[in-house]
Amino acid sequence: MRIARIEHPGGIDHAVVEADGYRLIEDLYADEIRRLDWWVAVAEARLLAPVEPRTVVGMAHNTGPGDRLLPPQAFLKPARSVIGPGDPVPVSADLGLVHAEAELAVVIGGSGSVLGYTVANDVTGRDLQAQDPLWTQAKGQRGFTPLGPWIETDLDPAHESVGLEVDDATAPPVGTDRLARSVAEVVEWVSGFLPLGPGDVILTGAPGTSLPIRPGQQVTASVAGIGELVNPVVESVSAQHTERGAA
Amino acid sequence: MRIARIEHPGGIDHAVVEADGYRLIEDLYADEIRRLDWWVAVAEARLLAPVEPRTVVGMAHNTGPGDRLLPPQAFLKPARSVIGPGDPVPVSADLGLVHAEAELAVVIGGSGSVLGYTVANDVTGRDLQAQDPLWTQAKGQRGFTPLGPWIETDLDPAHESVGLEVDDATAPPVGTDRLARSVAEVVEWVSGFLPLGPGDVILTGAPGTSLPIRPGQQVTASVAGIGELVNPVVESVSAQHTERGAA
Repeated sequence: MRIARIEHPGGIDHAVVEADGYRLIEDLYADEIRRLDWWVAVAEARLLAPVEPRTVVGMAHNTGPGDRLLPPQAFLKPARSVIGPGDPVPVSADLGLVHAEAELAVVIGGSGSVLGYTVANDVTGRDLQAQDPLWTQAKGQRGFTPLGPWIETDLDPAHESVGLEVDDATAPPVGTDRLARSVAEVVEWVSGFLPLGPGDVILTGAPGTSLPIRPGQQVTASVAGIGELVNPVVESVSAQHTERGAA
Repeated sequence: MRIARIEHPGGIDHAVVEADGYRLIEDLYADEIRRLDWWVAVAEARLLAPVEPRTVVGMAHNTGPGDRLLPPQAFLKPARSVIGPGDPVPVSADLGLVHAEAELAVVIGGSGSVLGYTVANDVTGRDLQAQDPLWTQAKGQRGFTPLGPWIETDLDPAHESVGLEVDDATAPPVGTDRLARSVAEVVEWVSGFLPLGPGDVILTGAPGTSLPIRPGQQVTASVAGIGELVNPVVESVSAQHTERGAA
């Protein structure tokens, strides 16, 4: 089952994705997903990020089998850096090199267990990362966490193909079996120490799927069994990542 | 004005702190705080963390004037690691050395500007920090972010005394004027790149106020113009900060 979060004439709701529209549901985090008598046509809906997390956690040492030699390492992204399908990723020239990273993302449900999976673009300021040992500025800028297009509840996360395209450039698709640590291991390790709850998201790591992005381009992150997450990259003039007011 | 978040027989609400009770308010994030005709006696209320943030950001290089030579550096703590006054801080023996850090914390209001200030205890696994370059495990464990006892909206954050006591040990109180970067500088710098919203919290840094803690102790963080944040430290057996399932 695919569950989207949509903006429609009646408001903002979670809804099951059907062939030509969306069937609203009562509560994404209930024990059982209950469909309502309210259907919205595709033309009347806009896809939003499928959840509004309080915690977005990513895996650092999970880009390929070699990382298995390193201890597991998590990082946090700001919850409000999450944007939805089609939303612009703001990148200012003074950020230097910025990468898109396509990843399979785990969505936590009402019981604290895995509700389903979505696609994430873990946008990362690569030059900033070099000066920012804790990665807060490098990964925490406004709009740096596109999520979507929806949640897939039926998926084997161990054998999914992750892809990334930036305009005409394509990163070769890589299977999640190339991650140093499996999605199941990551979920168990993270939830062992970090408090997670409904709507929280774990980015499981980029198995080699990253490409540079710059304003004017379009970036498409995908997971074969879920779908495509497409975002334009736009020029931002308001990013202030350098120290101000410190003479 | 002091605004607390309380659990009382009628539910959970924000309320103005009065001499012998709490006056409920309509909406903490409205342009103007509107008092309701609902008053709760002290004996009927339990103080909770004054906000439920989506983002908790801390300042790394802000422990004293010498840090001014370093670039500013922020870190994130998980939103769900926030606990309230009196709530236990769980510490398991296998975490090694754990420190309490008393800090002045900024609370962001509905307009995105500063609503007021509270006291934070930025609990930090010091031994974990040495193995965890991104500090996610070191600072992100369950219960590692006590906040409270309330929000003070009228405060000059530049000249406040920050104190810390752990049982009979007392860290000498230090003024916020000893921070490498002032509270105003920190707010401007963080909000320049990181998306903040209502209820979010910025921990401004510990001006030398940290002490080790262990189960069985009581920790009191304080800011002179705000009040005292008291939490017991308890033994936790469930922390799992080491790798599991990876043979």
